[in-house]
Amino acid sequence: MKDASNKYPLIIVGVGPAGLTASIYASRYRVNHLIIGEALGGLAFEAHKICNFPTEQEISGLKIVEKMQKHVESLGASLMIDNVVSIIKEDKIFKITTQKGNVFLAEALLLATGTEHRRMNLPNESKFIGKGISYCVTCDAMFYRNKTVAVIGGSDSADTDSLYLAEIAKKVYQIYHRDKLRGETTWINQVTNNKKIEVIYNTKVIGLEGREKLEKIILDTPYQGAKKISIDGLFVKIGTVPQKILTKELSLETDEGNYIKVIPGQKTNQAGIWAAGDITTASNNFHQIITACSEGAIAAESIFKFFQERNR
Amino acid sequence: MKDASNKYPLIIVGVGPAGLTASIYASRYRVNHLIIGEALGGLAFEAHKICNFPTEQEISGLKIVEKMQKHVESLGASLMIDNVVSIIKEDKIFKITTQKGNVFLAEALLLATGTEHRRMNLPNESKFIGKGISYCVTCDAMFYRNKTVAVIGGSDSADTDSLYLAEIAKKVYQIYHRDKLRGETTWINQVTNNKKIEVIYNTKVIGLEGREKLEKIILDTPYQGAKKISIDGLFVKIGTVPQKILTKELSLETDEGNYIKVIPGQKTNQAGIWAAGDITTASNNFHQIITACSEGAIAAESIFKFFQERNR
Repeated sequence: MKDASNKYPLIIVGVGPAGLTASIYASRYRVNHLIIGEALGGLAFEAHKICNFPTEQEISGLKIVEKMQKHVESLGASLMIDNVVSIIKEDKIFKITTQKGNVFLAEALLLATGTEHRRMNLPNESKFIGKGISYCVTCDAMFYRNKTVAVIGGSDSADTDSLYLAEIAKKVYQIYHRDKLRGETTWINQVTNNKKIEVIYNTKVIGLEGREKLEKIILDTPYQGAKKISIDGLFVKIGTVPQKILTKELSLETDEGNYIKVIPGQKTNQAGIWAAGDITTASNNFHQIITACSEGAIAAESIFKFFQERNR
Repeated sequence: MKDASNKYPLIIVGVGPAGLTASIYASRYRVNHLIIGEALGGLAFEAHKICNFPTEQEISGLKIVEKMQKHVESLGASLMIDNVVSIIKEDKIFKITTQKGNVFLAEALLLATGTEHRRMNLPNESKFIGKGISYCVTCDAMFYRNKTVAVIGGSDSADTDSLYLAEIAKKVYQIYHRDKLRGETTWINQVTNNKKIEVIYNTKVIGLEGREKLEKIILDTPYQGAKKISIDGLFVKIGTVPQKILTKELSLETDEGNYIKVIPGQKTNQAGIWAAGDITTASNNFHQIITACSEGAIAAESIFKFFQERNR
């Protein structure tokens, strides 16, 4: 607490839909706060086509995040892009340290750090990241114009990735370990009717081959007689896992999947800490932009009431 | 079940943000459904200025509802404006009758009927509705250009009503029973700094006077020496109460305020019935457009899974 200018009543960690919405509500409640995180928009940013946000018939992740960011900034909140690397609680005050060496103090903490892409945990996976393996179609699809790519997964994200890639690549294999795709029927129908997309069901990718860059994937079940498929790029969409580092050091209660358990008001088991968005167990574990926004709003109102009670 | 064309897997009752968002998700899941309700947009429709929806810096209720409605219709859902007057369960099928005499059958039911304005329960209140008493500023403010009006209440809705009226009327009294306004600090500051608005704290309206139309309100505590204030219009914003009729006949479990109790997935205590939006106990009882939308999305996903399980 040496530097009073670095102290806020509230610090929101996470700059995706949950954190951004919480900031909007906090600003309107006049709860002075800092919102800080590594990647503006979180995973929502990567979505190239969002068709179920109620007020937008079709919008890109980039665009929807931009709208929220502008709203946040119009209300005068301090928004900072920096990676929080540690949070320590000392005397009811949270001390937050960032990668760039900033130190901030907060009386209340809202964790909205979201999730990250699940890795395949295959040998060579790390080696090929950026050299054929990608977790973000929006970022990397353009490298594969008229080439052959594969998408692993059967969720809405995997489906929309395949569809987007089909507009650019020559050929898209979508490889899924179950016997049918899951998620919105609209996307599934589009995938199965797309002539450029070939869905390979009941199959897992168990190996990666290549010299400098990824050249072949190895399947656990032969497809059309072959256990190896030659590809130029592999997009991995096998789900997400919650950001772990901060939840562990703050002794937050989580479920078996490491999602932070919250009670009404988005409160965690630790006094002074709230959580919102994909990182929590709320919203029936339905991870959507709209549910993340809602959790952010609920958390902000709960935090506002917390300060009101305390200052009474 | 005589008329098969009147039968839907899902009927959504309620055409506010919760119902509309549920319809969008249901359409994308290809769950054939009817969405039906009395007043498009529900109470959200009446808001003249919404400043906390994450993707909209400032928007009217009319406009935000219109965006959702267009989204719903673009996906081909059947949207009908009609008042559901009874729902009966027969053999696992819900039979829905409307005021216009339509009968529909559904396998699953989503109640998103929201809330209605709380009445003052004063003698003469009914007599003066439309004759000086209004529950909707957006609908009726224009009748009071350069006149004197009063707003009862201290919530965000009451505050924004006062602010809107101050742009039109000559003088606005805001009468509240507590010693300070509640809700967003931004609105409170605007109200207390507005020269046309005079907030009368710690005071209740206990009587209404007038011949053909409302002329005076009677206070429980004298204000500037007088127990009566002459006004041209009175806007009542003392909260909302859930729509009751359908919850009673369906034996739905509610809390003491008649809000429908829901469990994760927005399920009620009755098989085949879900509930979403302001009428439920979810979202920490924080009634916002964004929370209603989120509950609608969660309910639709839960209903989609219900049909998937059943059809397995």
